[in-house]
Amino acid sequence: MANNAATQPDARSGQAPLAAALQPDEAEVIVALRRRGALSRTDLARITGYSRAKMTAVVGKLVERGILSEIGAGESQGGRRPRMLHFNPSQGYVAGIDLGASSLDIALADLGGTLLERHGEPANVNDGPQVVLDRVCALLLMLMQRRGIAPEQLYAIGIGVPGPVQFSTGLLIAPPLMPKWDAYPIRSILRETFSAARVVVDNDVNVMALGELRSGAGVGVENFIVIKIGTGIGAGIVCQGQVYRGSDGCAGDVGHICVDQHGPVCRCGNIGCVEAMAAGPALAARARSAAESNTSALLAARFRSNGGTLSAEDVGAAAAAGDRVAMEIIQDSGRMIGEALAGLVNFFNPRLLLLGGGVSNIGHQLLSSIRQTVLRRSPPLSTKDLRIDYAGLGRNAGLYGAIALALEHVFVEQ
Amino acid sequence: MANNAATQPDARSGQAPLAAALQPDEAEVIVALRRRGALSRTDLARITGYSRAKMTAVVGKLVERGILSEIGAGESQGGRRPRMLHFNPSQGYVAGIDLGASSLDIALADLGGTLLERHGEPANVNDGPQVVLDRVCALLLMLMQRRGIAPEQLYAIGIGVPGPVQFSTGLLIAPPLMPKWDAYPIRSILRETFSAARVVVDNDVNVMALGELRSGAGVGVENFIVIKIGTGIGAGIVCQGQVYRGSDGCAGDVGHICVDQHGPVCRCGNIGCVEAMAAGPALAARARSAAESNTSALLAARFRSNGGTLSAEDVGAAAAAGDRVAMEIIQDSGRMIGEALAGLVNFFNPRLLLLGGGVSNIGHQLLSSIRQTVLRRSPPLSTKDLRIDYAGLGRNAGLYGAIALALEHVFVEQ
Repeated sequence: MANNAATQPDARSGQAPLAAALQPDEAEVIVALRRRGALSRTDLARITGYSRAKMTAVVGKLVERGILSEIGAGESQGGRRPRMLHFNPSQGYVAGIDLGASSLDIALADLGGTLLERHGEPANVNDGPQVVLDRVCALLLMLMQRRGIAPEQLYAIGIGVPGPVQFSTGLLIAPPLMPKWDAYPIRSILRETFSAARVVVDNDVNVMALGELRSGAGVGVENFIVIKIGTGIGAGIVCQGQVYRGSDGCAGDVGHICVDQHGPVCRCGNIGCVEAMAAGPALAARARSAAESNTSALLAARFRSNGGTLSAEDVGAAAAAGDRVAMEIIQDSGRMIGEALAGLVNFFNPRLLLLGGGVSNIGHQLLSSIRQTVLRRSPPLSTKDLRIDYAGLGRNAGLYGAIALALEHVFVEQ
Repeated sequence: MANNAATQPDARSGQAPLAAALQPDEAEVIVALRRRGALSRTDLARITGYSRAKMTAVVGKLVERGILSEIGAGESQGGRRPRMLHFNPSQGYVAGIDLGASSLDIALADLGGTLLERHGEPANVNDGPQVVLDRVCALLLMLMQRRGIAPEQLYAIGIGVPGPVQFSTGLLIAPPLMPKWDAYPIRSILRETFSAARVVVDNDVNVMALGELRSGAGVGVENFIVIKIGTGIGAGIVCQGQVYRGSDGCAGDVGHICVDQHGPVCRCGNIGCVEAMAAGPALAARARSAAESNTSALLAARFRSNGGTLSAEDVGAAAAAGDRVAMEIIQDSGRMIGEALAGLVNFFNPRLLLLGGGVSNIGHQLLSSIRQTVLRRSPPLSTKDLRIDYAGLGRNAGLYGAIALALEHVFVEQ
């Protein structure tokens, strides 16, 4: 793999030299080319609003540095056929990391977003950040070695984590599922190994939303919400074509919306939170009590064969086998999630609601019950063109989103 | 009042000639000058990204037409002191109209937003659009006559109405408080009298939010929500510094968010909507039953002296006089509104929640109870810098917002 000496990053700076060296006008040109493909200098002048003369100068410098290349002539608009410019994707690389409570997925892509290598394995976030991030670095180095890519050729790392993130600092703040990670400096730890990389940390659901926006069911949709249903419930919001993180970076924390003022006490201390009533553990608890009271023979049998435990997946399997109690548990969960989502639809008037996360695939009753509840509880004007569906990228949303997150921050300040 | 012949609008076109004749680059220049005050040609070239040569040409045309004028020299940056350009606010006028269910407020302003005349009077939207809009036109002509302004000098009218509006068409869609206005062509009716004016219709709460954003408590705040509590409950949303209307223009329709699954049936047919449980009529109904059962002597006495009716204002007066039942009614209402708002805070993570509308001023218990509930139910990260307060412009928010709405649409396509 050939290296252009002019673009070789400085491993000691702790900043991405490529990005740091780019002027705002240069970044604008690159962003335009990444979004739209090949363009002529005249196109670029029109899109950016800069003069033709300025554009020729900016492009000249970028071509010299190997960041852009000319790829033959485009269609003539009457005069000489214009030379088309192309962003050179193999000028550097990015990594996407999707960290789940019990899984770790890593992918390597070029600057054009083409996925080159990927790897997934079980992981336990409660092993703590040192153990997990050591493993992340080792795996990433392995993927890069396979392609002959040096650590300093990695320009950005996007990482999605299952907890609340202060986006501006990249720190997890009091994450309930991974307390050992509270305020842990993920960015600087990863930069010890990948010194040229910008590291961008975000909440897993925001990352899923970005993935759906860039390459999933949300392409071209201005306003939509991704709901992740698993151990907890969270939302990723796309507003006016961009991931919306709110004033403190904690928008979408919808798991503790109240859906029943007479409901059970949640681990947060409040009453009737949708997460406490309708997420994975609540489904499992209802299934256990149906097994223990023998109201469902199927669940009782699974309970015994599992050695005295039941999971949300067991409820899904029982429902698929026709168990009415299991179906009812799933429907009730869908109704409660639907109640919370109806409020968000009334407020936000999105075009699309996408369901993701492990529990979202538990059975078609869940989606159907959520749809029914939202349609019943939200005004006709806000539901007439509303689509409610599964996330388009399925299990890949987090990984693709993490790559998109890295790509969006190669060329702009965090 | 002198008229520049070159800018005299064509009364027969049905479009605003000023706006229609402006090119996008000209509009950009005007918007920049309106937002930032006086600027030099060099400043304008920098802000818009156009070349200095192009900017000189654009500015030349606008000065010729009287839209911009030069107002002396600015500070030198080393060379010749630059000539500063200024947007000429008396080149035209706009009107703001705040239509309530039972009130009508109208104001006239110049293109710089300076309020010139205003008038308010009782009105009944149920008299229907013809009666009300005839009155609007008569009052507006009267205000303009006082200043010697001809109808064709009015370039835009912003109007806030108490019902759901499809913003793209300016039509009310199935408005519950004003059924006679359903799909009524407000725009073309007003243009029959004010042929040069763009007419922009929006929901009253969106207009309040715009007023707060441009000249109230929301100045400089990126993300906030205005809640109007009156006969109904609605929200105006500012997201990333702009009024957010959602995919169908009906974002903020929060009155039918469920706050009690075991609550009463709402007029929308659903159970436990916050509007049915906590808005004006609900307060009045609870007060009436306290009067009839004599649990509150004060409310019972008011009930008799009012001739068998009680309003939300009566509850406020009784609470102010120390009546414990009235205070409790207000606190309960605040708690329920707070439950709905807590869900929105969790989802949207705004920096500011502003309360407006007739019922918002019913007593300090309301604000205090809303604050307590939101702080209890929302996660610490999203409430640590959250301010919950009364709308800064008070009763003027709708009128100022309507003027701002008109001003924002003088120079851009609707």
